[in-house]
Amino acid sequence: MQFLAENTADGVTRREFRLEVGGDSVPGCLWHPQGAVGPRPLILLGHGGSQHKKAANITAAAISHAQELGYATLAIDAPGHGDRVSREQAKADQDAAREAGRRAQQGQAPPARPSRIPGAAAKAVAEWRAVLDAAQQLDVVGRHDRVGYWGVSMGTRFGVPFVAQEPRIACAIFGLFGVFPGLEDHRLAAEQIKIPLMFVFQWEDELMSRDQGLALFNAFGSTDKTMHINPGGHVGVPAHERDSWLAFWKRHLGEA
Amino acid sequence: MQFLAENTADGVTRREFRLEVGGDSVPGCLWHPQGAVGPRPLILLGHGGSQHKKAANITAAAISHAQELGYATLAIDAPGHGDRVSREQAKADQDAAREAGRRAQQGQAPPARPSRIPGAAAKAVAEWRAVLDAAQQLDVVGRHDRVGYWGVSMGTRFGVPFVAQEPRIACAIFGLFGVFPGLEDHRLAAEQIKIPLMFVFQWEDELMSRDQGLALFNAFGSTDKTMHINPGGHVGVPAHERDSWLAFWKRHLGEA
Repeated sequence: MQFLAENTADGVTRREFRLEVGGDSVPGCLWHPQGAVGPRPLILLGHGGSQHKKAANITAAAISHAQELGYATLAIDAPGHGDRVSREQAKADQDAAREAGRRAQQGQAPPARPSRIPGAAAKAVAEWRAVLDAAQQLDVVGRHDRVGYWGVSMGTRFGVPFVAQEPRIACAIFGLFGVFPGLEDHRLAAEQIKIPLMFVFQWEDELMSRDQGLALFNAFGSTDKTMHINPGGHVGVPAHERDSWLAFWKRHLGEA
Repeated sequence: MQFLAENTADGVTRREFRLEVGGDSVPGCLWHPQGAVGPRPLILLGHGGSQHKKAANITAAAISHAQELGYATLAIDAPGHGDRVSREQAKADQDAAREAGRRAQQGQAPPARPSRIPGAAAKAVAEWRAVLDAAQQLDVVGRHDRVGYWGVSMGTRFGVPFVAQEPRIACAIFGLFGVFPGLEDHRLAAEQIKIPLMFVFQWEDELMSRDQGLALFNAFGSTDKTMHINPGGHVGVPAHERDSWLAFWKRHLGEA
């Protein structure tokens, strides 16, 4: 884990890093309270499709974890995202995502799109495990299982197989995803997950049906799981859910 | 509103009262922070079937409203409940409710039971309105629309028509109820409600189906509504929802 840059604002330090995983250089960010010393709960944030490790919602969540809970937070660019692609490619992907959403909303196209990166989910899982290993060597994180995973949409697509395989994850927040034809492995991974879960879903999500979302919630093997349904489309999760997420972390990972 | 007894513990004052409404003497309780002066947000708590104004969950909620938010809280015995029936009748009703739940769980009986009191919902609505009128004369409550309604199960059965008719209610928490054959008026009342709502539902509720619960959530006319689904049966709402409820009040009714 090679640290490249560091920046502190509003009591929160953000450290940018690169980690070599399987021949790839994975770019990531670690946030923690300014001057933090010693182990503390860690949240892993899996960004959405066409987004990146410093997208507005990722950065805002990381800052609130540090400021309000004293936690550390990690985010990495998923395969084919952020600093791992050219600006032109990133721009083209964002345009394609918007267009796919628009067409799905008008019923003109099936919502599911194949990933541009073959084997992206398996790659993402391996990268998360390697980044977690490396981060736990740091004094400010520490080796423990007070680790939570958050990721909606593509963050659930990649997060479910990761969390199913990673015993250090104590609790997770997923959402904006469902059971899809051709993603049978994803549903099977969901069944393997037994930790406390929150699942957030948008009732008018243009990319998936209500039944698909409910089916994924039903599939999770956890007995402690809660689903929050709100009106609106895929990118319209209401701001008050951020408070639910903070309360969820505090309930399951405790004080820093 | 005739006050009969007062009790203070842990910084919370509970005042028992009676109010004459339409020839009936309605028993109720008002809770507020010890020594509270001046207007503050008010929560109305509608208890469940076979329960009463001082049932454990009602009392616990009222205490946390006072201690954590500085709010006032009102609860009344619904028609045919609490101090409005003999101990023998109350006991018989509780036994009948348990038996109905048991039989419904085993699929031996339809879950819906007619109320023992004819016109109970209309009566409950009139009583809530009268109690709110009277409470708003008190200095510690005040005349305003920073009023929330909470009620699940029978508290939603009676609360939906009340909230639909009462413009002083700014936000409400319902749950453990659904769309039922023969209760068409209830669904129509739900459609009239436009205020921010939270709706809590148990995914293995032995008294109603998932589809019935989702249908009631869908029926509410509010654009700001959120549904929390948790595993388990009718009386198994997890403790963490109490924190969601406090956050909901704070978000919509503000500081005391």
